[in-house]
Amino acid sequence: MTHPLNPAMATTFPPPVMEARRWLTGVTFPPERPLINVSQAAPVDTPPLALRQALAEAALNNPDAHLYGPVLGLPALRAEIASQWSAAYGGQIAAEQVAITQGCNQAFCAVMSTLAGAGDEVILPTPWYFNHKMWLDMQGVRTVPLPAGEGLIPVAAEAAKLITDRTRAIVLVSPNNPGGAEYPAETLTAFHALARAHGLALIVDETYRDFDSRTGRPHDLFTDPDWARDFIHLYSFSKTYRLTGHRVGAVVAGVDRLAEIEKFLDTVAICPSQLGQIGALWGMRNLSQWVAGERAEILARRAAMVGGFSALPDWKLLGCGAYFAYVEHPFPLASDALCKRLVAEAGLLMLPGTMFQPEGSEAGKRQIRIAFANADTAGIAEMFRRLAGWRP
Amino acid sequence: MTHPLNPAMATTFPPPVMEARRWLTGVTFPPERPLINVSQAAPVDTPPLALRQALAEAALNNPDAHLYGPVLGLPALRAEIASQWSAAYGGQIAAEQVAITQGCNQAFCAVMSTLAGAGDEVILPTPWYFNHKMWLDMQGVRTVPLPAGEGLIPVAAEAAKLITDRTRAIVLVSPNNPGGAEYPAETLTAFHALARAHGLALIVDETYRDFDSRTGRPHDLFTDPDWARDFIHLYSFSKTYRLTGHRVGAVVAGVDRLAEIEKFLDTVAICPSQLGQIGALWGMRNLSQWVAGERAEILARRAAMVGGFSALPDWKLLGCGAYFAYVEHPFPLASDALCKRLVAEAGLLMLPGTMFQPEGSEAGKRQIRIAFANADTAGIAEMFRRLAGWRP
Repeated sequence: MTHPLNPAMATTFPPPVMEARRWLTGVTFPPERPLINVSQAAPVDTPPLALRQALAEAALNNPDAHLYGPVLGLPALRAEIASQWSAAYGGQIAAEQVAITQGCNQAFCAVMSTLAGAGDEVILPTPWYFNHKMWLDMQGVRTVPLPAGEGLIPVAAEAAKLITDRTRAIVLVSPNNPGGAEYPAETLTAFHALARAHGLALIVDETYRDFDSRTGRPHDLFTDPDWARDFIHLYSFSKTYRLTGHRVGAVVAGVDRLAEIEKFLDTVAICPSQLGQIGALWGMRNLSQWVAGERAEILARRAAMVGGFSALPDWKLLGCGAYFAYVEHPFPLASDALCKRLVAEAGLLMLPGTMFQPEGSEAGKRQIRIAFANADTAGIAEMFRRLAGWRP
Repeated sequence: MTHPLNPAMATTFPPPVMEARRWLTGVTFPPERPLINVSQAAPVDTPPLALRQALAEAALNNPDAHLYGPVLGLPALRAEIASQWSAAYGGQIAAEQVAITQGCNQAFCAVMSTLAGAGDEVILPTPWYFNHKMWLDMQGVRTVPLPAGEGLIPVAAEAAKLITDRTRAIVLVSPNNPGGAEYPAETLTAFHALARAHGLALIVDETYRDFDSRTGRPHDLFTDPDWARDFIHLYSFSKTYRLTGHRVGAVVAGVDRLAEIEKFLDTVAICPSQLGQIGALWGMRNLSQWVAGERAEILARRAAMVGGFSALPDWKLLGCGAYFAYVEHPFPLASDALCKRLVAEAGLLMLPGTMFQPEGSEAGKRQIRIAFANADTAGIAEMFRRLAGWRP
């Protein structure tokens, strides 16, 4: 028995990805049917050689790589984001409106800490990203679920019905984790108008934006000259440059909001990893062509997912995009039990919808998230062979 | 005006080190009197070449260096700490009782989140480490100050008087930041007995233990076979191996406590920087001789500080050890105003005691922290020349 124990922490559920990893314990995967792990949105390959060389060079010869840096991140990286984002989103973003964090999860925690405390409410579309729910639980903030509509797209008019005097923010993830949906620009505009009308903050996590199938800017929020009043953008370098192990993310927000975020980051981080920031900056300056190729590959895998599920008519593809397919399975058993059996019986590790829905949700029991970006097209074809051949 | 704004965040003070850095803005330091920055406990030199080479080699050729790792850290690093600590502290510590964090600040935040929520109380000796106070403020936890006694050593019997039914933990830092005091083993034993008698957790932050002037183990807490019940140890790799920019720290605690900590770390960090962990592990396995030399150098600087203040009889050296001297100045002005003037008039950046004491504290106005480890003995001699020559 752990004592003393903060009750808010005690009621927070344990990390789903770690729980799923434990399902692998004791299971042997025969050589002819190796494990296909599509549980976590994590590139399996290393960053390109030139980026690894840049990191090695900095480790050897750049003294700053080993010393504390500013709490809000390397000035050059903040400026590069401001410049590239201003062009990409058609708006005005200053370097002082950018902060670097130890990964995008930390960006979310820092932002939410400035917005909401115990007893406050935050609206989160379902299916949700479990780490968002976990942080809010730990902080005693009430998460108000907003069931996504058609195509796993949330509807602002539905969110409006959930707003109370304790509501502080609405959080969207686009392209969505776990749903894969790319939210239309009009959806984001409607949510921003709703947030503004009620004095709320709108947070949009765009971790997967570099794999969006659409060209041009994904939304118009930064074109509002007054965006910094209530719009907060989150980003991650983890997937784009395969830097998951370096933990580098970003927040774009108003300068006054960043002054509050700086308190959190000083206390929790002191500064982001310097080498990770150096790698992210090198990537931004040198890898745009390479990222375009990565995007094309992810879009090919996505097409393979759409094709594969169209040949499995009992399954229903609810959403598919960026790194994820979110599906409804056809079996008369709950998704968590199903996913555990798929490990041993089909060599497939996927996460059940129960991990992305409120506790007890019936929808979650029928749903599964597949992080397909981790498998190549041959691996995806093999995954479909196994799914087609499996029966409970 | 930032809106919405979590009131607990709004009342948290801004990062003192960043505030002090802003005092440098617009000040020019003539070549014959360059800035001596003794504000932050941060090595100014890089890690030794062999460690930088190990990091570069991993960046180039170790694919794991770039990928997600386990939430609680690299198993090999956890095992190395368990093994070396068991020997150093004369106790039994298992790898499963060790977690790696993105720096020791994060270790503190993770631990405290599992212990205390809004409305709870935590006892912290003064002068305190400001980031501890900031985190507790953000969480709505009440920090109960325990004024340190003779030699800046806190007294367990005094702490006993502060315990209420909302008290959850006592936090000690030894060797102390900012005070420099090395707490006697009996002091730690007495605090542990007090914590156990009241069902509290005792957290001891030993970030500076590798620079302790004493030989042998600094305390006997790990020799208690039941230590994991209520003792929690924090550590940092930042100073020992000059890895501040990599952000690697550690928690040693009971397995059930670490299961709660894992929820926090999964949400805030996902995993610690892989390269930082690789560097820390390499250091533990290869740099013990080098660290012994670093310690000798720090102890020489400490002797220079003691000697220097003995020649300035108007100043009173309250504590001196590890990286820090904590002093009482002789001038009729508050330490924050004094420290600001020392920047422009003497080229010295030090932190005022007001940053380490409760708001409004009279003691804080008379005190200054000097992070002397950042200056070599020549720099320390020059600092004393400037202090001796300065008058308000």
